[in-house]
Amino acid sequence: MISVAEARTRILSGLVPTGAEIVSLAEAAGRVTAAPVVARVSHPPADVSAMDGYAVRAADAAQGARLRLIGAAPAGHPFAGKVAAGEAVRLFTGSVVPEGADTILIQENAERDGEEVIVTVSPAPDRHIRPEGQDFATGETLIPAGVRLLARLVGLVASGGHPWLSVHRAPRVAILSTGDEIALPGEPLRPGGVVASNGPAIAALVRAAGGEPVLLPTAPDTLEGIAEAAAGARGADLLVTTGGASVGDHDLVQAALAAQGMVLDFWRIAMRPGKPLMYGRLGDMPMLGLPGNPVSALVCGILFLMPAIARLTGLPGDPPMAEPVRLGAAMPANDGREDYVRASLLTQDAGGWIAHPFPVQDSGMLSRLARADALVIRPPHAPALDAGAIVPAIRLAPLGI
Amino acid sequence: MISVAEARTRILSGLVPTGAEIVSLAEAAGRVTAAPVVARVSHPPADVSAMDGYAVRAADAAQGARLRLIGAAPAGHPFAGKVAAGEAVRLFTGSVVPEGADTILIQENAERDGEEVIVTVSPAPDRHIRPEGQDFATGETLIPAGVRLLARLVGLVASGGHPWLSVHRAPRVAILSTGDEIALPGEPLRPGGVVASNGPAIAALVRAAGGEPVLLPTAPDTLEGIAEAAAGARGADLLVTTGGASVGDHDLVQAALAAQGMVLDFWRIAMRPGKPLMYGRLGDMPMLGLPGNPVSALVCGILFLMPAIARLTGLPGDPPMAEPVRLGAAMPANDGREDYVRASLLTQDAGGWIAHPFPVQDSGMLSRLARADALVIRPPHAPALDAGAIVPAIRLAPLGI
Repeated sequence: MISVAEARTRILSGLVPTGAEIVSLAEAAGRVTAAPVVARVSHPPADVSAMDGYAVRAADAAQGARLRLIGAAPAGHPFAGKVAAGEAVRLFTGSVVPEGADTILIQENAERDGEEVIVTVSPAPDRHIRPEGQDFATGETLIPAGVRLLARLVGLVASGGHPWLSVHRAPRVAILSTGDEIALPGEPLRPGGVVASNGPAIAALVRAAGGEPVLLPTAPDTLEGIAEAAAGARGADLLVTTGGASVGDHDLVQAALAAQGMVLDFWRIAMRPGKPLMYGRLGDMPMLGLPGNPVSALVCGILFLMPAIARLTGLPGDPPMAEPVRLGAAMPANDGREDYVRASLLTQDAGGWIAHPFPVQDSGMLSRLARADALVIRPPHAPALDAGAIVPAIRLAPLGI
Repeated sequence: MISVAEARTRILSGLVPTGAEIVSLAEAAGRVTAAPVVARVSHPPADVSAMDGYAVRAADAAQGARLRLIGAAPAGHPFAGKVAAGEAVRLFTGSVVPEGADTILIQENAERDGEEVIVTVSPAPDRHIRPEGQDFATGETLIPAGVRLLARLVGLVASGGHPWLSVHRAPRVAILSTGDEIALPGEPLRPGGVVASNGPAIAALVRAAGGEPVLLPTAPDTLEGIAEAAAGARGADLLVTTGGASVGDHDLVQAALAAQGMVLDFWRIAMRPGKPLMYGRLGDMPMLGLPGNPVSALVCGILFLMPAIARLTGLPGDPPMAEPVRLGAAMPANDGREDYVRASLLTQDAGGWIAHPFPVQDSGMLSRLARADALVIRPPHAPALDAGAIVPAIRLAPLGI
């Protein structure tokens, strides 16, 4: 048996990011930059006012001084002239500061009297002016390659003057469910049949991780059927199978794919739930075989598939983030397997989370997983813990799981 | 001036969830249920084996006993007969347990000898059997209305036999940017012009919150121009404007929309950044006016627009989640405004986060917001704090911001 961390390292070591494509800024949110984003314009593009008021010369603007209003410069309409001694130009937030002026007299500190402005509070020089390029200058790198574009970065790319940008193509992830017993939701269920949940659930997980799922037709339990269904994965960046990865007589996926030239590793991972995992490669296409049990499939999806997709999208593929939570109940000592314990979370009065591990951890129970908020991580051979101890936990909702 | 919490309460009080629509399970991730999801099938649909092994009668399976193998029941192919005294049926994980059998002899505890199975470790009754309906029974409510469908819930809906489900329509959010100075990214920038970042950034925020953005053409600074652009919002579930909400002479949005019959509230909110906010209603359509400053617009987007969209999608519209973080540097006492301080986060060795507030909080600086990981919340009149103090913070990445 190998550790969770070792399995993840081996999976990631064989993956390279997808190629770049051009997308419009409107489609770019959530994608990963394939090239640095360099500012095409400076921001602000000129010295601009940070407030509504008057562009003046500080030397002229003693308290009580009367300044002659020679014009106005609404945002987008710069004043063409120059501010000379004793003069003022009306400005608004974002207005370009006209030549000659060296400070902003904010309107709260001025009184208007016809074509004159009376200074009620004298401004210091250089007040309320945002100098050209203060935020960033033309040619500056705004975002390096390999960064996921969140909404605020979309705003930064926009300010930098880019209507298009180069991002990694969303990896296409083919999902193959196998089993004679499996029916799609809404299809007739024959005796001994069960409704497939892994395909739709893993497809949602793939989307949450930034991939493009392709749900292959369910393969029957025959070598030919599995080979035919897997052929539909051609051109995918990753093939994921669910089911067929345990040790029973009817686990044909391994045999079927090996017959297609797939080089397969078969790992038992020292973890609970979800220990059997297949990993391999058919030509250029990497392949990850998740357990068939729905809870195990989702947990392995979080631990192995999401980092794999992250790596394909151009990110490092870090393990899912674990946060410290306080135990609401004691936990027994752990055996040699890393345990991912389903738990509900309550907020503490002092902030942070209290985790209540579910007493029964049956990995077939999707209804119980639905009520879980987090996976509490118990390392191999972790000692028994009392209520109140701090343990690492992976929260599910922030992952979209 | 009103508080952040009061402004949010007033906004939410006027919003009702969008109507229901039917979507396929494949499109359902991220949507909010508009009706309870009730199981159409039980899971498991029959008593099934949790392991690979043999269906036997516990009374017959003493250690050393030889049982006659009368058949096999691969998953999806139930055994039609009955297990009688001294008999066994080969089973696999997920196989239906045949009539007559009352326990599973797992294959690790058995030896095969031709058509006989020798018991090496005797099983207790009822071992390794998942009874019909253990996870859920037909007619059971799997998911109530008003729940966002994460990947694990998509799996649960699938198991319940639903290819379609009823969810709230994604709210259409029209976004109106105003200003003569504004150019879209990639368009020519005239003197005094600036590249618009609010439209694309707010559109990405709307998507992250589960809405469907409609980016209206940029309106010039005229009453007619604004009214014409706003007319394009007809039929939207929410109109969001950016810019034009401060007190300058050229803030025409308020006047332009009032002339169209919009009932407007204009609030100054006791917060930093982003204090001016408009809120109103044009006929049935609610309207939220964000500040023009890009950083203020995003912070107000997080505090007011995201909860508003959540409410429209059928969720309660809770404030953004704040988590306790440890200050990496001292902070001064706060004045009467709730302060949202941009900060970077580092992970602590003991788990959790250390926040380093940026010394300069210029709200015009998108490049600085891009380097922030969180907004540290400083309530009105909060006392000065030393490094090491615990403060609430809103992490940006989990919001997609």
